[in-house]
Amino acid sequence: MTPGDPSSRCFKLVLEYDGSDFAGWQVQPNARTVQGELESALKILTREEIRVAGAGRTDAGVHALGQVASFFSTCRFGPAELCRALNANLPRDVRVREASNPEAPFDARRHARKRTYRYVLSRSEPAVGRQYVYCPRWRFDVDPMIRASECLMGLHRWDGFSRRDPDEERYESEIHGVRWVEEGDRVVFEITADRFFHNMVRILVGTLLEVGGGVRSAEQFREILEKRDRTLAGPTAPPCGLFLVRVEY
Amino acid sequence: MTPGDPSSRCFKLVLEYDGSDFAGWQVQPNARTVQGELESALKILTREEIRVAGAGRTDAGVHALGQVASFFSTCRFGPAELCRALNANLPRDVRVREASNPEAPFDARRHARKRTYRYVLSRSEPAVGRQYVYCPRWRFDVDPMIRASECLMGLHRWDGFSRRDPDEERYESEIHGVRWVEEGDRVVFEITADRFFHNMVRILVGTLLEVGGGVRSAEQFREILEKRDRTLAGPTAPPCGLFLVRVEY
Repeated sequence: MTPGDPSSRCFKLVLEYDGSDFAGWQVQPNARTVQGELESALKILTREEIRVAGAGRTDAGVHALGQVASFFSTCRFGPAELCRALNANLPRDVRVREASNPEAPFDARRHARKRTYRYVLSRSEPAVGRQYVYCPRWRFDVDPMIRASECLMGLHRWDGFSRRDPDEERYESEIHGVRWVEEGDRVVFEITADRFFHNMVRILVGTLLEVGGGVRSAEQFREILEKRDRTLAGPTAPPCGLFLVRVEY
Repeated sequence: MTPGDPSSRCFKLVLEYDGSDFAGWQVQPNARTVQGELESALKILTREEIRVAGAGRTDAGVHALGQVASFFSTCRFGPAELCRALNANLPRDVRVREASNPEAPFDARRHARKRTYRYVLSRSEPAVGRQYVYCPRWRFDVDPMIRASECLMGLHRWDGFSRRDPDEERYESEIHGVRWVEEGDRVVFEITADRFFHNMVRILVGTLLEVGGGVRSAEQFREILEKRDRTLAGPTAPPCGLFLVRVEY
């Protein structure tokens, strides 16, 4: 089904998923992916071969509270009915939170204006909810991390903080917001941008943790941004602490 | 090692665990239990056959944020050192939060004065954290559940709300507190008592959910308590929503 088919309607879904047992969002052969599970459930319900677009291509192990997906279908389902039917056919680690019929053409990926990601750090290893945090093995001080992250705001090129992507040329995007929340043992970093590049949030967090651990200064952190050299940045923080929180259009 | 051994010291541990993959607290043949994992880790570290006492015998699938365990050992470990060594040897779904050497004789089970359990309900099925809530398939109204639960306070006999236990005669205990918190889609029920009987919190919640669903009145709920007849009560709510929160001495 395509936007060109006069009998097809556009659907928008807001999805929550636990990324722990997924090889990421994007369909891959011989791997369990969120897009794959969603397309299989849609095929059962509509008998159509539907290709779904997702706002953020989350990596293996990354979670989502508000991923947005879109597709076209000639099915007769109303949005509320489709939401219920999908949840009855999807595995329990993916849930459809909302469904609607936006004005076509709507493309969850290309029309997204802002994406917000959250990274959850913990100072102690929890047993309950350990799937949803990263607990570094060293002590870290949040204040220098907050100071270092101030340089992120605005328009930048992110070559220094992204994994190489053969399809990408400029690695340019604008950061609209950076927020830190400390609550008990938890430190939460939230970042909003028009777009993100491969592993960008995880490399930012991995490098900020080196600042927090005292092995790197805020000035050295800023240098990576300016020199745009990935080899200068820190390790990629693990996926389990990362959530795609919301997408704005 | 026993309290009688002059060279042995008493240890108290505060434990957190994710009950999802455990057949409960108590050691059983051919089953993965929290007590079993703890005793295996202690054996590796101390080379002693240590028997651990736990304050609450949580069932399969029930979680703990503050289970308390005690044992005697002649090992040389200080409490902080033992805490680190145990966490390095325990699987990630059990964590030791605190360790100390209380004045002997200390028995985590027999000396406990108050235990607090929490049951977490959700009005919508989450994907993230679905292991830690119960989402009933029907709508429920919290106000009648709160009213019905008022009769629980004080000293009662709990035959009507407990699974038969051949070792139990009186099923008597005193409820010191009942607390309800509603937050977004979540409804949290917390109950404190000197002791709890088998499945008691889960049968209370299962029956209160019938009150919330409108199929049973608060008066009918009170009758179960008075008549002490298990066949009158509702179903046992699933273990995944239940947490042993803390134990007081």
